[in-house]
Amino acid sequence: MYDLVIVGAGSGGYEGALYAHRRGMKVALVELSPETVGGNCLNRGCIPSKYMRHGAYMLDKFQKLPEYGIFLKGYDLNMQRLKKGREKVVLTIRENFKKFAEHLKIPIFYGKGVLKDANTVVVGPEGIELKAKYILLATGSSTASVGDLVPDGRYIFDTDQIWSLEDFPKRILILGGGAVGVEFAYIFRMYGSEVVLVELKDRLLPSADIPEESSRYLARKLKKIGVDIRLKTTLKGWEVAGSQVKAFLSDDSEVQADLILLGVGRKPNTEGIGLEQLGIEKDSKGFVKVNQFCQTNIPNIYACGDITSPLMLAHKSMYEAKVAISHILGDKDTVRNERLVPKIIYSAYEIASVGLTEDQAEEEGYEVKVGVVSFVPNPKAMDDGENEGFVRLVASEDGKILGCHILGPHAGELLHQVLHLMKADLGVDFLSKAMYSHPSLSESIVQAGMEVHFGPITWAKRH
Amino acid sequence: MYDLVIVGAGSGGYEGALYAHRRGMKVALVELSPETVGGNCLNRGCIPSKYMRHGAYMLDKFQKLPEYGIFLKGYDLNMQRLKKGREKVVLTIRENFKKFAEHLKIPIFYGKGVLKDANTVVVGPEGIELKAKYILLATGSSTASVGDLVPDGRYIFDTDQIWSLEDFPKRILILGGGAVGVEFAYIFRMYGSEVVLVELKDRLLPSADIPEESSRYLARKLKKIGVDIRLKTTLKGWEVAGSQVKAFLSDDSEVQADLILLGVGRKPNTEGIGLEQLGIEKDSKGFVKVNQFCQTNIPNIYACGDITSPLMLAHKSMYEAKVAISHILGDKDTVRNERLVPKIIYSAYEIASVGLTEDQAEEEGYEVKVGVVSFVPNPKAMDDGENEGFVRLVASEDGKILGCHILGPHAGELLHQVLHLMKADLGVDFLSKAMYSHPSLSESIVQAGMEVHFGPITWAKRH
Repeated sequence: MYDLVIVGAGSGGYEGALYAHRRGMKVALVELSPETVGGNCLNRGCIPSKYMRHGAYMLDKFQKLPEYGIFLKGYDLNMQRLKKGREKVVLTIRENFKKFAEHLKIPIFYGKGVLKDANTVVVGPEGIELKAKYILLATGSSTASVGDLVPDGRYIFDTDQIWSLEDFPKRILILGGGAVGVEFAYIFRMYGSEVVLVELKDRLLPSADIPEESSRYLARKLKKIGVDIRLKTTLKGWEVAGSQVKAFLSDDSEVQADLILLGVGRKPNTEGIGLEQLGIEKDSKGFVKVNQFCQTNIPNIYACGDITSPLMLAHKSMYEAKVAISHILGDKDTVRNERLVPKIIYSAYEIASVGLTEDQAEEEGYEVKVGVVSFVPNPKAMDDGENEGFVRLVASEDGKILGCHILGPHAGELLHQVLHLMKADLGVDFLSKAMYSHPSLSESIVQAGMEVHFGPITWAKRH
Repeated sequence: MYDLVIVGAGSGGYEGALYAHRRGMKVALVELSPETVGGNCLNRGCIPSKYMRHGAYMLDKFQKLPEYGIFLKGYDLNMQRLKKGREKVVLTIRENFKKFAEHLKIPIFYGKGVLKDANTVVVGPEGIELKAKYILLATGSSTASVGDLVPDGRYIFDTDQIWSLEDFPKRILILGGGAVGVEFAYIFRMYGSEVVLVELKDRLLPSADIPEESSRYLARKLKKIGVDIRLKTTLKGWEVAGSQVKAFLSDDSEVQADLILLGVGRKPNTEGIGLEQLGIEKDSKGFVKVNQFCQTNIPNIYACGDITSPLMLAHKSMYEAKVAISHILGDKDTVRNERLVPKIIYSAYEIASVGLTEDQAEEEGYEVKVGVVSFVPNPKAMDDGENEGFVRLVASEDGKILGCHILGPHAGELLHQVLHLMKADLGVDFLSKAMYSHPSLSESIVQAGMEVHFGPITWAKRH
């Protein structure tokens, strides 16, 4: 009898297993196969894409090298080598995961895990039965296709298949201007591909959680490096044209490309794992219903990550796994809170958001105060040749931090300081008096706090 | 009559002027000349050195480019161009400062500022008298020479003169393995100079505030890139040898080099500004005595920055200026606290420290708990090809964060999240349950919190 069996060894499952072990529980993991340990994020998502993004970022930095007295004599690009480096990182992390679990005596049972009853998970065709006091479902999500766009790994790729590419395409058509679309647009463009990026809505990153200003900055930079962005546009049809595809867009144009990449959403993996048999409730969109402790309607069965809501981020799953385990151990204070889940996009800029945008805050009835500080005059950003972007801090009239939106150098790391303050309910009063190092990018965050707390000093608004 | 006159428009003076203006005070600045606005940090310190360090860091990153499928065909280096880029950043920041002050109607009076009485500063040879309710002294520091090593800008350079170099030296001898020494050692080495780094003590960065592990990591990396490090060594003498210098070291070796760079300390600028006439007290080392509100023994005269203690960091001065102004405005809660001043060194690694080391905490009688997390398995660090270094979190038995020491990628920005927690007195309990994004470097900080709070999961320590 295990204290906890976790179905799925992706980000949430693995982090949950380590956390349960730390907290003294006897825990086991169930995962489809040794090759899928680490889940989508590790094998087909954030880890390999951030690897390639780092290469793209380096290529981007080349433009500024002369300012540092460094003059390149040219360079060659080789996708096989990029792929090899990328795969090495993924494999290293995956094997480290497994070795670490073994070292900690956390068993991983391979095969599909199916709930038999509230205390039993059956694994794989052999039907190994694992008994558990508690069960955590962390089965993740799968790529979704749209219309007749069935990914074939030849003309049409989704984010499962794109990793098999052996050469940079001369020309690529990316469908969807969300996180996946803008990340790959930047990667392929910097590695020399012509990129056409098609988005149905009127802006890139068309999510209510991302301020329009972030979309606008990103679009401007992507255009500057040569990405052909088509907003308010859809794909009407496509056909094979020799070794390429010909795509027909709603703006009546035709785009010929080597391949089409779909960056258009994912669906939760909730089929065939025994939910129906046990009567575990799902919502209208097919997500497992959980309370603030990640508990399903069966009290000893919990769920985390991509199967609990459309906010499919690895760290949401990791956090929810800890919420579930904390609750099992009697903690009632640790709860899921999507408002505190950071959203970080690595494209031509790092774009990091947490909490509410100004618009969202106004809709919720707040009298909103906003502190905006540009990275343009930030001395560290100037030293690094990356003085573009901004910190936007959204606060209530009484100084509560409601959200923060950073676009610019290392935004993904910088956001964490605001994240911690928000979780601790420390407001702009605290932030405005915080210590920072000089020169640093972090100064701009404290300055944003001062802008809200003491009122703005800007060229435009005073005198 | 001004509310506040600030003597010195360096980091502390300038930040103080902006802060006083934000808080509604009528403020004026006094600075030696239009060319010295911004002080040492901007003109001869952190800003130009971090600029060159970014170029060095880029050159360092070149080694990893093949892993990203990027093959350079070679490159040329040009110090004139580096210098030009560096000077452009310095000049831009300095001119922006001045324009911004003008826009905000903060006057800058040029000339040496001397106290006449507790409400009067006399400026320059014209003797313009500025009347003020309060005065903030922010006069900074100057380079100190040692023995017969008088900087001549030909053979012997200090950190005032090194900026005039028009070419990379073939070989440079750096005296002093503190922050200045290790930063320039990295810069010159990456730009192709042979570097001999001489340090009196038995380790680089021989400060009680920096853990030995940081020194060890740095020494290993500097050696790896070819810096010739001589510990427990001093310069016994030197002579001109043709167009070079010949240096005689205490290890009985001779080093021939194009120049000697002194990175050996600074002295506070407290002479000739009227302190003695007004009876403003100094300590035995010549620093102006201030209380926790940065107030001197004359209640309406405050001091900040390099003249208040040997911790000569721009952001210490910036913070102290705000402490002084807050106190003038009636705030008794904002106090100087050197324990919360971050120390960040940009060499072959970013090395960031705040608060106590383990040794210091033990000396203060704490039962110390330490959480150490390596960047080696951090997925974001692996993606970026920079998975070296560590987070060391020092806590008390009851979970108070006493210090944090980060060595590795973007350590200087990462440290801020811990800095805020320490200032808010949030302990490892909070940190261990914090949200983070994945993949991120910041994960390692939360993990360090878990290591302390729940006990370590490491290869070595369990099972």
